[in-house]
Amino acid sequence: MKIDVLSLFPDMFKGPMGESMIGKAIERGILNLKITNFRDYSKNKHHDVDMPPYGGGAGMLLQPQPLIDAYQAVQKQNQASGIPKGKVLLMDPAGKRFTQHEAEKLSHEKHLTFVCGHYEGYDERIKSIVTDEYSLGDFVVTGGELPAMIMIDAISRLIPGVLGDKQSAPTDSFSMGLLEFPEYTRPADFRGMKVPSILLSGDHQKIRLWREKQALKKTLLKRPDLLKKKHLSLKQKHMLSDIKIDLRDHQD
Amino acid sequence: MKIDVLSLFPDMFKGPMGESMIGKAIERGILNLKITNFRDYSKNKHHDVDMPPYGGGAGMLLQPQPLIDAYQAVQKQNQASGIPKGKVLLMDPAGKRFTQHEAEKLSHEKHLTFVCGHYEGYDERIKSIVTDEYSLGDFVVTGGELPAMIMIDAISRLIPGVLGDKQSAPTDSFSMGLLEFPEYTRPADFRGMKVPSILLSGDHQKIRLWREKQALKKTLLKRPDLLKKKHLSLKQKHMLSDIKIDLRDHQD
Repeated sequence: MKIDVLSLFPDMFKGPMGESMIGKAIERGILNLKITNFRDYSKNKHHDVDMPPYGGGAGMLLQPQPLIDAYQAVQKQNQASGIPKGKVLLMDPAGKRFTQHEAEKLSHEKHLTFVCGHYEGYDERIKSIVTDEYSLGDFVVTGGELPAMIMIDAISRLIPGVLGDKQSAPTDSFSMGLLEFPEYTRPADFRGMKVPSILLSGDHQKIRLWREKQALKKTLLKRPDLLKKKHLSLKQKHMLSDIKIDLRDHQD
Repeated sequence: MKIDVLSLFPDMFKGPMGESMIGKAIERGILNLKITNFRDYSKNKHHDVDMPPYGGGAGMLLQPQPLIDAYQAVQKQNQASGIPKGKVLLMDPAGKRFTQHEAEKLSHEKHLTFVCGHYEGYDERIKSIVTDEYSLGDFVVTGGELPAMIMIDAISRLIPGVLGDKQSAPTDSFSMGLLEFPEYTRPADFRGMKVPSILLSGDHQKIRLWREKQALKKTLLKRPDLLKKKHLSLKQKHMLSDIKIDLRDHQD
């Protein structure tokens, strides 16, 4: 996958995108990540990219020219290499919520361009190059860089070959529709905190059932909304009513 | 505010936390950010920090010892400097949703510690040091580093003195309860795309009303859930019914 990022802070990407899984995917040629500083495309002699808003108000807005010209230059280079136009993504509070489902859809794309706003806002006409607006959630961050990195991470790990262990991606919380059961590793007794004995029993059938019950219980207690969306098997439905009875008895 | 981060990938933080607003807040001494690599606290001779799960399954889990020992060492140093214990935050899909409201609450704390999981998961006993679990949303990323940086960004920009322009923080989307109105800057005509003429009129009363209407309209169309939570003034209620009538007439 080719990923372009248009940002005023290309150095922000070096650490997060160089380490761990993403760094390895780039090394292996599965990901081709290019960060373009759109300040380089400013036609202003001071390389300014922002101006105060028309109509008054605090703060500075990104102007359309540097960003749109940067996008078109990058687009031209991609075209010359046979890379399709692809989606152009902008992080905006009004955008659709980014979820695992969206990550899965985007992981099938051949080319994505992330537009990172910064400062207090951007000129509305920047949206003329944007195909999709996304929001990570109802909170405000300084720039689009960190949200873009989150999306790049969530999307790339779903591309075949990016994660070493093929089993890792599909058993994650949201692909299964349930929260994950608690897990334990060595030592069996850590300063008095013990691993549940069933996990040390070697009885794999019992362990599987215990884990399924724990996942159901955790989801019921912390994210009951996920249970409503999930198609439970008959066995899981029985398990869930047992859990509810246990919890009620425990309250008394 | 003192912010501690426990992570296996301290280099991931250098770029994002060095640039822009956060870098400046650190320079000015408003933020004191310390990243601790808990691998340094591994008692294993190869400095391993992870082991396969008890009970079988794919992947490796973070062991409790290195992370908890790192936390206690950092805590000791903080205590010696008179820094209070503070909240210990873990990113987990089962955690409460991180929102602007949570960011505001956390921005009043004196000390926050972020625990960054990585790999396929962590030993449940790591939660013995955690006071609060947060989730950014229903998507899966490789590690807790990027989500921690998002939270650090969202929280720090609310600390007085961090943002240069005092007006910037409180007029953001979610503090106002509405999405932001569209904004425009120079040039007035960019390749045929024109700035709405009202913004060039100089009539500040009209501009204010136009912006309020645009913010209401955008929120109605893209995030009607926000309108339900907001206490609208009588004027805003009238404005909203006008917008609804306009939209209906437009559909015919």
